[in-house]
Amino acid sequence: MDFYSFFNSSTSWRVRIALALKGLDTDFHGVNIRTGQHHDADYVREVNPSATVPAIVDNGFHLGQSLAIIDWLDGKHPEPRLIPKEPALRARVLEFSYLIACDIHPVNNLRILKYLQDEIKVSPKQKDEWYAHWIGEGMAAVERLLAQAAETYGGPWCFGTQPTLADCCLIPQFGNAQRMGCDMTPHQRTRAVVEHAAGHPAFVKAEPKKQPDYTPPPPASSNKDKIKA
Amino acid sequence: MDFYSFFNSSTSWRVRIALALKGLDTDFHGVNIRTGQHHDADYVREVNPSATVPAIVDNGFHLGQSLAIIDWLDGKHPEPRLIPKEPALRARVLEFSYLIACDIHPVNNLRILKYLQDEIKVSPKQKDEWYAHWIGEGMAAVERLLAQAAETYGGPWCFGTQPTLADCCLIPQFGNAQRMGCDMTPHQRTRAVVEHAAGHPAFVKAEPKKQPDYTPPPPASSNKDKIKA
Repeated sequence: MDFYSFFNSSTSWRVRIALALKGLDTDFHGVNIRTGQHHDADYVREVNPSATVPAIVDNGFHLGQSLAIIDWLDGKHPEPRLIPKEPALRARVLEFSYLIACDIHPVNNLRILKYLQDEIKVSPKQKDEWYAHWIGEGMAAVERLLAQAAETYGGPWCFGTQPTLADCCLIPQFGNAQRMGCDMTPHQRTRAVVEHAAGHPAFVKAEPKKQPDYTPPPPASSNKDKIKA
Repeated sequence: MDFYSFFNSSTSWRVRIALALKGLDTDFHGVNIRTGQHHDADYVREVNPSATVPAIVDNGFHLGQSLAIIDWLDGKHPEPRLIPKEPALRARVLEFSYLIACDIHPVNNLRILKYLQDEIKVSPKQKDEWYAHWIGEGMAAVERLLAQAAETYGGPWCFGTQPTLADCCLIPQFGNAQRMGCDMTPHQRTRAVVEHAAGHPAFVKAEPKKQPDYTPPPPASSNKDKIKA
């Protein structure tokens, strides 16, 4: 299986966690979305018509969108299952994952922050406030869902004793928010899951700094470089 | 089943289509997100901790997030199935639906446009350009995926002869973009699906103007009123 990823893309990070949890090896292809490689004509035509990362090509079947890829992997390699089959747990895991994937991540990704900066000419302070606003609002909802989950399923993961799609989404979202300088101390249930994941080999393997295309962060003084991928 | 919806919310609209396709009746509750009813303490505590629309309460089980709700409905009421089981078609339908639900819809919804207007103080022209930019970029990707789908599955729906989750997502996204004044004429494959759906009773039943909480649009001169829910 070919895997197309950018080290700092949190959607790529989700799939990296899923691949590592399932113990699947891939042929890695770094796609630098900072330099626009996801818009290359060959990539769009042959790998991902959506012109995004991540993507896979599995025996000639190319597929984009992180959550569709994880659903695909769950179908072909069901151990460990990341999207549960039991209806109530499945609904809760999907609800939580979509909160991150639809309500939190999209409004703070690279292209949005670039547009705010380059087209609307927001100040660095306005950009930071934008980012922090949606993280604050979104993470408050995450904490409410985690509180509800704990009552039924306990920990140490989002939903009980096994990691699921929810954890594949939460850990990268937390990582990017932290990188952008957001104060994550109020989000205590999230932090407990993040701390637990930090000791799990699959989650460690999926971290941005462990990726073949990783490049170290530029000097802290440069605001532009903080823009999240 | 209780159903919480706002007539102009395209995520609510997705679920309305799914309910209508499956022939399910609900107890309807309008939640006016323009006046902030989705933040009411009772609603957040008892119906949807995410403080969003849509939501359902099904025999005491409350659930938010449109795509999680449709997955839940598909599990309990599988006819007609909206998220196919056959792996390749399933992957394509999910990939397409996530393109809309994760990459297009979130950056143009009500709260984002309000923040741009109220906090960043963008001009009406800048707000319209923001909206049109993401619709243009997103719909170009939609058209590429529809072209690819047509080769394998044909029409008249996004993926063959039966509506799926993809159509539940596409029709509301098109409707909102059109309401916001976007030029949708270049998106020909999308328009063909939209025209087909306009003749289907379930899609007609789900339209914003058919909802109990529908209110007619304000005068066209008022820019604020164009903000998409």
